Amino acid sequence: MTHATADQLDGVSQHTPPARVELSFQPGGQRVRVPPGVTLFDAASWNGIAIDSTCGGHGTCKKCKVRIIEGSAPVSPLDARAFSPDELRGGWRLACRAVAEGDAQVEVPPLVTRPKAATVGVGRQVILRPAAQKRYLELTEPSLADQQTDIERVLAALDDLELRVDLAVLRGLGQRLRAADFKVTAVIVDDVLIDVQAGDTTDRLLGIAFDLGTTTVVATLLDLSTGTPLAVSSMLNKQQPFGADVITRISATMLDPAALDTMSTLAHETLAELAAEVCAQAGAQPAEVAEVAVAGNATMTHIALGIDPEPLGVAPFIMAARELPEVLATDLDLPVHPRARTFMFPAFGAYVGGDITAGLLASGMNRDARTRLFIDIGTNCEIVLGNRDWLLATAAPAGPAFEGAAIRCGMRAADGAIEGVSITPDGLMLTVIGDREPAGLCGSGLVDAVAGLVKAGLLDHSGRLVPDDLAAELAPAIAPRLTMLGAERVFVLHWLGEPGDVAASVYLSQRDIRELQFAKAAIATGWHVLLDEAGLAAGDIQQVLLAGSFGSYLSPASAIALGLVPRLPVLRVVSAGNVAGEGAKMALLSMRERAAALALLGEVRYVELSDRDGFNDAFVDQLRFPD
Amino acid sequence: MTHATADQLDGVSQHTPPARVELSFQPGGQRVRVPPGVTLFDAASWNGIAIDSTCGGHGTCKKCKVRIIEGSAPVSPLDARAFSPDELRGGWRLACRAVAEGDAQVEVPPLVTRPKAATVGVGRQVILRPAAQKRYLELTEPSLADQQTDIERVLAALDDLELRVDLAVLRGLGQRLRAADFKVTAVIVDDVLIDVQAGDTTDRLLGIAFDLGTTTVVATLLDLSTGTPLAVSSMLNKQQPFGADVITRISATMLDPAALDTMSTLAHETLAELAAEVCAQAGAQPAEVAEVAVAGNATMTHIALGIDPEPLGVAPFIMAARELPEVLATDLDLPVHPRARTFMFPAFGAYVGGDITAGLLASGMNRDARTRLFIDIGTNCEIVLGNRDWLLATAAPAGPAFEGAAIRCGMRAADGAIEGVSITPDGLMLTVIGDREPAGLCGSGLVDAVAGLVKAGLLDHSGRLVPDDLAAELAPAIAPRLTMLGAERVFVLHWLGEPGDVAASVYLSQRDIRELQFAKAAIATGWHVLLDEAGLAAGDIQQVLLAGSFGSYLSPASAIALGLVPRLPVLRVVSAGNVAGEGAKMALLSMRERAAALALLGEVRYVELSDRDGFNDAFVDQLRFPD
Repeated sequence: MTHATADQLDGVSQHTPPARVELSFQPGGQRVRVPPGVTLFDAASWNGIAIDSTCGGHGTCKKCKVRIIEGSAPVSPLDARAFSPDELRGGWRLACRAVAEGDAQVEVPPLVTRPKAATVGVGRQVILRPAAQKRYLELTEPSLADQQTDIERVLAALDDLELRVDLAVLRGLGQRLRAADFKVTAVIVDDVLIDVQAGDTTDRLLGIAFDLGTTTVVATLLDLSTGTPLAVSSMLNKQQPFGADVITRISATMLDPAALDTMSTLAHETLAELAAEVCAQAGAQPAEVAEVAVAGNATMTHIALGIDPEPLGVAPFIMAARELPEVLATDLDLPVHPRARTFMFPAFGAYVGGDITAGLLASGMNRDARTRLFIDIGTNCEIVLGNRDWLLATAAPAGPAFEGAAIRCGMRAADGAIEGVSITPDGLMLTVIGDREPAGLCGSGLVDAVAGLVKAGLLDHSGRLVPDDLAAELAPAIAPRLTMLGAERVFVLHWLGEPGDVAASVYLSQRDIRELQFAKAAIATGWHVLLDEAGLAAGDIQQVLLAGSFGSYLSPASAIALGLVPRLPVLRVVSAGNVAGEGAKMALLSMRERAAALALLGEVRYVELSDRDGFNDAFVDQLRFPD
Repeated sequence: MTHATADQLDGVSQHTPPARVELSFQPGGQRVRVPPGVTLFDAASWNGIAIDSTCGGHGTCKKCKVRIIEGSAPVSPLDARAFSPDELRGGWRLACRAVAEGDAQVEVPPLVTRPKAATVGVGRQVILRPAAQKRYLELTEPSLADQQTDIERVLAALDDLELRVDLAVLRGLGQRLRAADFKVTAVIVDDVLIDVQAGDTTDRLLGIAFDLGTTTVVATLLDLSTGTPLAVSSMLNKQQPFGADVITRISATMLDPAALDTMSTLAHETLAELAAEVCAQAGAQPAEVAEVAVAGNATMTHIALGIDPEPLGVAPFIMAARELPEVLATDLDLPVHPRARTFMFPAFGAYVGGDITAGLLASGMNRDARTRLFIDIGTNCEIVLGNRDWLLATAAPAGPAFEGAAIRCGMRAADGAIEGVSITPDGLMLTVIGDREPAGLCGSGLVDAVAGLVKAGLLDHSGRLVPDDLAAELAPAIAPRLTMLGAERVFVLHWLGEPGDVAASVYLSQRDIRELQFAKAAIATGWHVLLDEAGLAAGDIQQVLLAGSFGSYLSPASAIALGLVPRLPVLRVVSAGNVAGEGAKMALLSMRERAAALALLGEVRYVELSDRDGFNDAFVDQLRFPD
């Protein structure tokens, strides 16, 4: 088994991947490859190598001292202040200012304080260093001999940080300092002082991670000082009445000029209700929430911020921005701290949004040496292929089959939905959500059923249900379930109502199978194109991650059987869970992970399928179910 | 005549002035002294030496190339990208990144484009480079082969600037770009993209300079592309009903918790009416105003921004901030461009505010080799002494004498006010505002009258009106005007009503004279303390600048006669006019002047009078009128 390196890729791809320099960090000996121009601090952070810092790489705390053992890095103006000429000649640099311009070996001194860590995402250890922080300060009171201004007095006690101040903080500052005898707590998010509170409030510092889905929105309240989730809540996105998927929501804004405002408000209401709910669950005050993170697809993000999504919905599918400007919690009307800030995950493309960035972060796609395939299956399916050296992304329009919308007996993955189907020589075994009488078929059941029929020989490789006589010969126990409903061939999964009443039963129709076939072809074409682009074969993929609420429930065996994912040993296909939500949590808990999320924008190359030569041929090839 | 250099000062002052490095700029040969750590770009800019730049020193345009001929400056990471190794060895650096660490000689290449200039302030030539700018862009339309996001497409066309984007700009961006066929105008203030407008709107770019006085507020509408003032308007500050001076306004907020909000709103209304008026006068749309600058004292600035001013009003007189955080025009409820930005002048101390910073900028106090004394006379009197090497500031509580408030026949400088008085052997000559029958006495008339009485011998040096017999002997023509009103001695300036009806006349009372005496003593003590602090004598002062609406009307001869200003040849005492307003204009027209205003914060040392040893003795000494 091999996987392509950046050099190998050069030969096979039309696009030259970005150049890399190799850094080796001592004493651990970790080798990391980063684009030239990245700071040593970022290069280390993105790869989980901890370098001391309290300012998070802003060049103010001067704690991130490292020594260049081999190679070189230019001396920055700050270095001249932090080191003696002898130390500079000895290779000492501030890691946050030292730019990797060529291969180098870097010595990292042991940490002075051992950072706390939390486990998040796909078993990832995250070093706790939230962008939100509190500092308790006991300031000396001003006098005629010491007329420092109120804000300078506060900032002087925070001189390892280089902070901007929100104007509103100044408004009550004088009274608050004096009422609290100059014993106060500074509340900081990123490089902004958002509050100065009376007394010591450092025991409470909260954040909310939102997974802003088209269908479902999930909020997790986190204790940012311990990394502990305090409460979780979810609800349907209140925009649902405007359509089930992003395309119908975008269309709504094109048909009615007022729809954007309305949907924007509905998104805010959804987020606000969840915020109130998780705070209530945990007995927390909303004003204790200093920061929120939002992972959502590009359409959800645009609409929530009141940005016209129309250009996302029509060719050439253009976003307003990949990385969003400064967003405040008030921009989302969130009932949290009035100056709380918002981290919005950046998006790669109109159909590979911030939810995918968060998912890649949580699944460590950009850190793993293994070549992996990440598939988030839904109406729109996002596909990412790569490893720590390169990443390619695309989006495939899978259509609504997996949501159950275009499937005759389809339903959401709710109570009564058949979520698993296995066909045995003796008959059919169904797994039903909520231990109830089956009422319909959800996406994972659909995939299982079709995969089972192919395996049993009742569905041929072109996707046609076989004639009755062949069925009776190949699978006598279930062949009677193959019947007609009107002019269409159907396969009955579960009889309901009168015996033989096909219309009342839960069945799978020939047309349903065609829907799934189209969805499968779109997805498989997507990852085939990425493999081509990387010059790799399916066998080079070392792991397939099935992400998103649908992907997580899918049977890996069935996905392989249908050709939805590459034909690999079944253990290499794993469910990744709600990685978007996990990514949002990581961004709240760690500035470094957040920096890594932003860095992903430069690491991932987006491959547009819709104008690709040979796309249609490839798609037709993929309509076939594999042998 | 000598003036102290920083080195001489070392010997005589308790405080060590900051260290300086000397830079010599070629080919002009100008020598400038700046604190170490200042960039070459700033050092040149603050001293009027133009270096090419389109980004204003943000390190993005890479146009500010200079060569170090003697001395050295460390290589910055940006230098490594802008220059070849040979050029770096040859001393080439980007001036905006190169830090002055020692004396150096710097070669500045000729400007590629000759910048426009405007004359502002006290005859100052200002190089036109406003922080607000417009750029007309013709962008290529996106396609499936070019899926750059809308904002990245705009920013790519502005790649000499490193811009932040206001979230609101993204909201309508997609529609606007498409409706305008991707031909748009970017509106930028500082490093923020505040708008993208359809078509080419570069012919209109406006700013408003506000002089936010306690009594009067003045607005000037400027065409930022030519430096031309388009309209000027002034009105009384609507906060007037809360008191005539800053102390009564601060007291109002302490007595009534709602007063701050009310006065804040009144300040906004005053500014808004003036903004509307200057726009209407010039036939301009308020939305064309991209930036405003505000010069006001610390109390006016605090109240306008809704910041509690109480700590300004009670010892130890503490400001919320010297340099204010980011302020938007919406923070002042100004009816201009919805994302227009505001430059608030920084303040040195609670009683040496942003109006004085603006005044120092306009009068070039920080650039002039001459040792000068700047006095802004009012209820509170701000005094600054120094030259381009050092500046000392203080504030003296002069009381309301100059505003006419504590003077029995006092009035504002309005129609009917006696603004000039001269005593001749033959009698009295009055100058009256508006060519009307005299109705009262304004500040400049008061100073003239008292100076005249001292000169004529009718007022002795302790400030007492002389006995009638001595008066008759010394000045027979006017001695009869010296009479009694009740138990108090008065000098009648103008008879009104019945002959001999002193109570109906415009007169000057012994108590009025005492008021002026106290005011004069406070001011003179102020500049004496500064002279002491600098180790200089009055004769070392090469020019006295009388600033502010009162100072500008004062007779230099009378001011000298009273000892309000040092005894110098009268031609060395000059009126500087409304320098605060001029400074505000300069900040709008030139980023460099604005940088110089901010740099002043580090250049000026504030000297507090109220806790000073020997202050009371000095004050008593100064009560005496000079011989």
